[in-house]
Amino acid sequence: MGARVTVLGLGAMGTALAGTFVAAGHRTTVWNRTPGKADALVARGAVEATSAAGAVAASPLVVVCLTAYDAVREVLAPLAGALAGRTVVNLTSGPPKDAPETAARVERLGAAYLDGVVMATPSRIGDPASLILYGGSRQAFHDHRETLAALGDPVHLGTDPALSSVYDTALLGLMWATLTGWLHGAALLAEVTAAAYTEVAGKWMRTVGGFMNAYARQIDSGTYPGDEFPLQLHFMTMDILVRTSRARGVDSGLPELFEELAGRAIAAGHDGDSYARLIEYVRRGDRA
Amino acid sequence: MGARVTVLGLGAMGTALAGTFVAAGHRTTVWNRTPGKADALVARGAVEATSAAGAVAASPLVVVCLTAYDAVREVLAPLAGALAGRTVVNLTSGPPKDAPETAARVERLGAAYLDGVVMATPSRIGDPASLILYGGSRQAFHDHRETLAALGDPVHLGTDPALSSVYDTALLGLMWATLTGWLHGAALLAEVTAAAYTEVAGKWMRTVGGFMNAYARQIDSGTYPGDEFPLQLHFMTMDILVRTSRARGVDSGLPELFEELAGRAIAAGHDGDSYARLIEYVRRGDRA
Repeated sequence: MGARVTVLGLGAMGTALAGTFVAAGHRTTVWNRTPGKADALVARGAVEATSAAGAVAASPLVVVCLTAYDAVREVLAPLAGALAGRTVVNLTSGPPKDAPETAARVERLGAAYLDGVVMATPSRIGDPASLILYGGSRQAFHDHRETLAALGDPVHLGTDPALSSVYDTALLGLMWATLTGWLHGAALLAEVTAAAYTEVAGKWMRTVGGFMNAYARQIDSGTYPGDEFPLQLHFMTMDILVRTSRARGVDSGLPELFEELAGRAIAAGHDGDSYARLIEYVRRGDRA
Repeated sequence: MGARVTVLGLGAMGTALAGTFVAAGHRTTVWNRTPGKADALVARGAVEATSAAGAVAASPLVVVCLTAYDAVREVLAPLAGALAGRTVVNLTSGPPKDAPETAARVERLGAAYLDGVVMATPSRIGDPASLILYGGSRQAFHDHRETLAALGDPVHLGTDPALSSVYDTALLGLMWATLTGWLHGAALLAEVTAAAYTEVAGKWMRTVGGFMNAYARQIDSGTYPGDEFPLQLHFMTMDILVRTSRARGVDSGLPELFEELAGRAIAAGHDGDSYARLIEYVRRGDRA
């Protein structure tokens, strides 16, 4: 049986969210500040509300996807009566600092609040592998998890509503690091197709994922046993990467950055520790 | 039924390789230049040869794991008669430039040659997920694939024996990039445990893997449609990462490197292209 859900904001992402709720059989009410964005959704079964208040009144779950946090506050502020007892899920993009204030305002209006980020492009909404991260009320997440699961894989990060935005930034950083390292490898391996390289890289990334899991435990315990793969060994092979890059006309800025980081840890006597020891040098922020 | 396999060189890796062949039921002959390394293997069922020639004569498949390529040539050179018709799989670590010459020498001695790299530490030999990469004779790989599969997941990269070493370097670069990006995220997310962050990061890496596959096709076709995720959007959010890193006392060198790379592509008019367009800037190697 369909849940009732409202989507405020029908840009590319809001339209994808609403369309996915409709396709999942939910009774979906939509609203956009400027009219004319809802026609295709209405043709597929959504209901267009003529006001934000009417849209909010239609559903216990209100998903907001506007251009900025300012717009969220502006749209929700006059809806005090309508919002009471409902859950607001804010999927608007914004910096971490905006989330706690928006959370506080929404909670003062009597609604529960979740601040989310969609780690996918609009066309991937509804793919069960698309990650959607939520910070804020654990109870609200529990109550609406099943409905939200229509959009992608829902993950509750914790009760701090700023968490989703910090995770967003951290995960994009991980993506850029990975993709840039992958591009570096594709440039080095000029003698094979990128597709052939990427097939092997995909297998290798499972091993790298195992390192992450092992190193996460080291970071949380503050001990960094290097065992079979100490920093000294990394450093020696990093030097091969730097030299091979230069010899093949590939930008060596990225491997030089790792080498510099590892070199500092080794100079401080951590040559026998694992790669995870470098967290202390990433954290320090004293790079000249 | 077990195959016959010889392992030359009983350092930590050679011992792990030989022990895994024994455990898989293969008739394993071992030899080390300095004696006394084989006792534990012999106790488990391996046969110790008293000379390299005797070791090579015992098996059609000869796995070599010595300290350096020089040592490989030195050990194999006197064995012309014994080597004829056999396959030499060289798992010794070395730079790409050493592989073709070693291949030519071994082939002149009448043996087929594969140059391999073990993308795993000794304790992970025998794990079906451990990647072992081979370049060289396709026929030799075909003939001995099943025996080699005891060590890990065998992948044939192509007939060029230098490929495995270049792949090794490229994949380690991808590993360092990924791990450093992951450490950066762990440092940013000071409010959660590294384990909690890594659980989410592991899910996210599946999405990143999808980008790699899509971007590999773009690189091979030389066209970089940005569609829903153009460089301009990357660049804007990179700036958030740089500023968030500085605000949280995290080294911003890594995100600044991505931002600089993307900035150069955008300055050249590629703002609507995908991240894969950056291959041209990684390749160029004209970083000042």
